[in-house]
Amino acid sequence: MQLNSLSIKYDGRQLLILDQQQLPQKEVWNEVHNPDQMIDQIKSLKVRGAPAIGIAAAFALDQYFKSGVTADQYFQAAQKLRTARPTAVNLMHAMDRMTSFPKGDLSEKRVESAATAIFREDVDLCDRIAENGAALIADGDHVLTYCNTGGLATAGVGTAIGILRKAHEQGRDMHVYVSETRPLLQGGRLTAWEMATLGIPHTLICDNMVAMLMAKGEISMAIVGADRVAMNGDFANKIGTYNLAVLCHFHRIPFYVAAPSTTVDPACKSGRDIPIEQRDADEVRGVRGGFGRAQWAPSDAPVFNPAFDVTPAGLVTGWIFDAGVFYPSDVSGGKLQTLFSTKG
Amino acid sequence: MQLNSLSIKYDGRQLLILDQQQLPQKEVWNEVHNPDQMIDQIKSLKVRGAPAIGIAAAFALDQYFKSGVTADQYFQAAQKLRTARPTAVNLMHAMDRMTSFPKGDLSEKRVESAATAIFREDVDLCDRIAENGAALIADGDHVLTYCNTGGLATAGVGTAIGILRKAHEQGRDMHVYVSETRPLLQGGRLTAWEMATLGIPHTLICDNMVAMLMAKGEISMAIVGADRVAMNGDFANKIGTYNLAVLCHFHRIPFYVAAPSTTVDPACKSGRDIPIEQRDADEVRGVRGGFGRAQWAPSDAPVFNPAFDVTPAGLVTGWIFDAGVFYPSDVSGGKLQTLFSTKG
Repeated sequence: MQLNSLSIKYDGRQLLILDQQQLPQKEVWNEVHNPDQMIDQIKSLKVRGAPAIGIAAAFALDQYFKSGVTADQYFQAAQKLRTARPTAVNLMHAMDRMTSFPKGDLSEKRVESAATAIFREDVDLCDRIAENGAALIADGDHVLTYCNTGGLATAGVGTAIGILRKAHEQGRDMHVYVSETRPLLQGGRLTAWEMATLGIPHTLICDNMVAMLMAKGEISMAIVGADRVAMNGDFANKIGTYNLAVLCHFHRIPFYVAAPSTTVDPACKSGRDIPIEQRDADEVRGVRGGFGRAQWAPSDAPVFNPAFDVTPAGLVTGWIFDAGVFYPSDVSGGKLQTLFSTKG
Repeated sequence: MQLNSLSIKYDGRQLLILDQQQLPQKEVWNEVHNPDQMIDQIKSLKVRGAPAIGIAAAFALDQYFKSGVTADQYFQAAQKLRTARPTAVNLMHAMDRMTSFPKGDLSEKRVESAATAIFREDVDLCDRIAENGAALIADGDHVLTYCNTGGLATAGVGTAIGILRKAHEQGRDMHVYVSETRPLLQGGRLTAWEMATLGIPHTLICDNMVAMLMAKGEISMAIVGADRVAMNGDFANKIGTYNLAVLCHFHRIPFYVAAPSTTVDPACKSGRDIPIEQRDADEVRGVRGGFGRAQWAPSDAPVFNPAFDVTPAGLVTGWIFDAGVFYPSDVSGGKLQTLFSTKG
């Protein structure tokens, strides 16, 4: 067993997580020995991106089972891992799958094969999303992307960034605008780094510069990721995504969301059912990471710091899934339901 | 002669500038000895805010004339000071006024009285803007503000922040949302500090969180400042202002711009005539100031970094001037012209 992505390496015993808080300045791999350590890696965003979190948690469980724990301990650890990132539905799916056997039937083989399948399927999902999305990009397009949705966030090529990568590989003449994504700067740190690594022409901007670029006619489409998609097409993604969706709507610019179908949550009727976590106030009062730290605001400044926001389906031009591109009439017609009936 | 504001002190010889790059961590006053040093203070944003820049430049010219230079040197210095911040029309007005005499008529008294008048009139303008704007705020309002438009940016109480201060002094029960204003963080550094100093209840947010707050019904109005207002009501202000205007429009939230009538530029028909400067790429790749420095993006990341954007008049609910609140029908009816005919 040897399963490696850009940000996770697992050989069935040793589990390594690329510390994304230290990128792009340093490439540091953290060794994880148990589920509690993995929860800490997830909460501190050392591993991030909805698909990558689910995979990392599944690997942590597989490793934990191999360390010789009881079935009760295994199931309790799966339960605890769920709490590490409540908004990311992929984590819930991964934990569901890792606990889909009767306690008495737990075996090393079953656990390992579930973890391996979660990883392999994500690679495959990314490839299909990339194919479907790349077909929407034309020569000369200037594509806005947000946060980091590439190989760091998934087992495969990524979601929104996977699409950009595929279009670039197919020879499309395009330019990418990278929005820095305050407060944690996943765009400025990670996506800018991935674009340079992939050789894709790009420009880094602050989040509040997007509207001006749109007014100048500099943005032809936006593609973002999703942490959870509700059955009516509303979706949660990194804070600031809804901001972009409104700006696209006003400027009549196509706004696409790219996600694996595992991100769709049949338990959420609409965006109102998606829980949004609040994060630490110091993230807004300054910045900190492997690049250093700086605090500019008064240290007691009151702060609002939601991790995600919800974009209503009405602002979405299309949902780019592994299963194809869904349009508003598809979603309002209930097509998201087919993602589950065909699976089930 | 002793003219002091929150950020400029001048006694006719000694000219001190409060270094706003070091606030709120440190209160450092820089001594300025000649116009070249003032240009440096303006370009590096140690003195900032359109009215404050005009006043600081006028004081630097007054000090320069008193040092015994020729009329030619004086007029050349005025010309050079104009280039320090091309978007700020107050600077152009101040320089026009400081050079409104024939070269042969230059005298210490004339120069000093022009500089003093620019300062005193700004104090008075701020008071009148504050009165006019405070009347628009009701009990229970949650007001969004942007960048820093307070006593640091003007000779008086400020423009948008002067309004908030006046409403607070009048006993209004209100809450202020402070948007941090990347890349230079004037909101997070300066406005958060001024709100705390003034005792006004407030919450600091990142610029990309505004839309979510609006969708939650948490923002009842926005008040921003302006660096230049064109004759059709379009205006330039800190980058990100246009972003907020679009978000207000979409969420049907009143959007006001507060500025002294000196900010209106009769030479600009529309926003297209307003020059927008590009600033250093490192400002977007990281942060730096008296609070420290940090760079998170790749050091060669290509960057777009405009200092300002232009908000079209069609997105403005009202223009709060010293002369009163102007509404869209006033502006489209040519009322901005009256600001000049009554003066002239």
